[in-house]
Amino acid sequence: MALGKDYAGQQCALARALELVGERWTLLVVRDVFYGVRRFSDFQAHLDIPRAVLTARLTALVDAGVLERRRYQESPPRDEYDLTDTGRALWPAIFALAQWALEYVPSASGSVREFAHAPCDRVVDRTGVCPDCNRVAPVEELEMRPGPGILAHPRTDPVTLALRRPHRLMEPLDLSPAATRA
Amino acid sequence: MALGKDYAGQQCALARALELVGERWTLLVVRDVFYGVRRFSDFQAHLDIPRAVLTARLTALVDAGVLERRRYQESPPRDEYDLTDTGRALWPAIFALAQWALEYVPSASGSVREFAHAPCDRVVDRTGVCPDCNRVAPVEELEMRPGPGILAHPRTDPVTLALRRPHRLMEPLDLSPAATRA
Repeated sequence: MALGKDYAGQQCALARALELVGERWTLLVVRDVFYGVRRFSDFQAHLDIPRAVLTARLTALVDAGVLERRRYQESPPRDEYDLTDTGRALWPAIFALAQWALEYVPSASGSVREFAHAPCDRVVDRTGVCPDCNRVAPVEELEMRPGPGILAHPRTDPVTLALRRPHRLMEPLDLSPAATRA
Repeated sequence: MALGKDYAGQQCALARALELVGERWTLLVVRDVFYGVRRFSDFQAHLDIPRAVLTARLTALVDAGVLERRRYQESPPRDEYDLTDTGRALWPAIFALAQWALEYVPSASGSVREFAHAPCDRVVDRTGVCPDCNRVAPVEELEMRPGPGILAHPRTDPVTLALRRPHRLMEPLDLSPAATRA
């Protein structure tokens, strides 16, 4: 069934959010930018999505002000993508959806990644609160660490391998050969 | 472009969440159940979606364990839908997405609804924390109240009108004629 992309009759902030980030794959692309993925070929290696879909999602996210595009090479032309302030503000929603699945969806059990409040060195709870300082940890203070489910991870692309190391959110991922050894 | 519904290659809790609630309209249906909508005809009046889409979304949400179906009338057969524990646990994600749009999406500005921590009688902040007791307010203690943008709301269906009154989340909406007067 063909359905439009907007929810014109719904005067509701949730509907506006879903118009911008509710399309298939969109939130997984945004998640990857939080994880430090920046370049088209790396998104593609990690997400296995058709080039045309990835191109459309990145363009829509730039148009929506969630990502910004920066040319890092002219010949051939190559772009990097990073989160804007608007994009960074999506973290609580992404975190809440993932935590929900971890707790309630059997096929998601076994946390692949944990998120620690770096200044306190403590893993945040499922509401995002640091058990040490008792506040919701801001995304720029979160470190992603491998969780108990990481070894069940079947993928061996360079991004997946690099993500097995502790890593500050939003910092570019180290995709050097040393960091992506299986 | 035809795209499947699952993200088989993504070993990630966010992907599992989106497989269950990432389809178009799904989170708006779940939102309506939090708001107290229970019956097919009321979802339809409020959402303006094709019957077949609404039927498919409700069935998928029951199959995913997010909603439970209860027959309230036998002839003709009519069902009500309510949140399971799994469904209730989606509130933080729905709230976070809506708060993001309120703050960052210009077309969503002017809060239609506010959420107050009922025991403290204080509107929660954008992270869901009650400024009085300083904790993330649990959904069963939230009261939805009309926000400053409510009067710009163009809809006049009974559900929209009933939602103009303060209302505890998850309690069935009063759709009596007195409650739905414009």
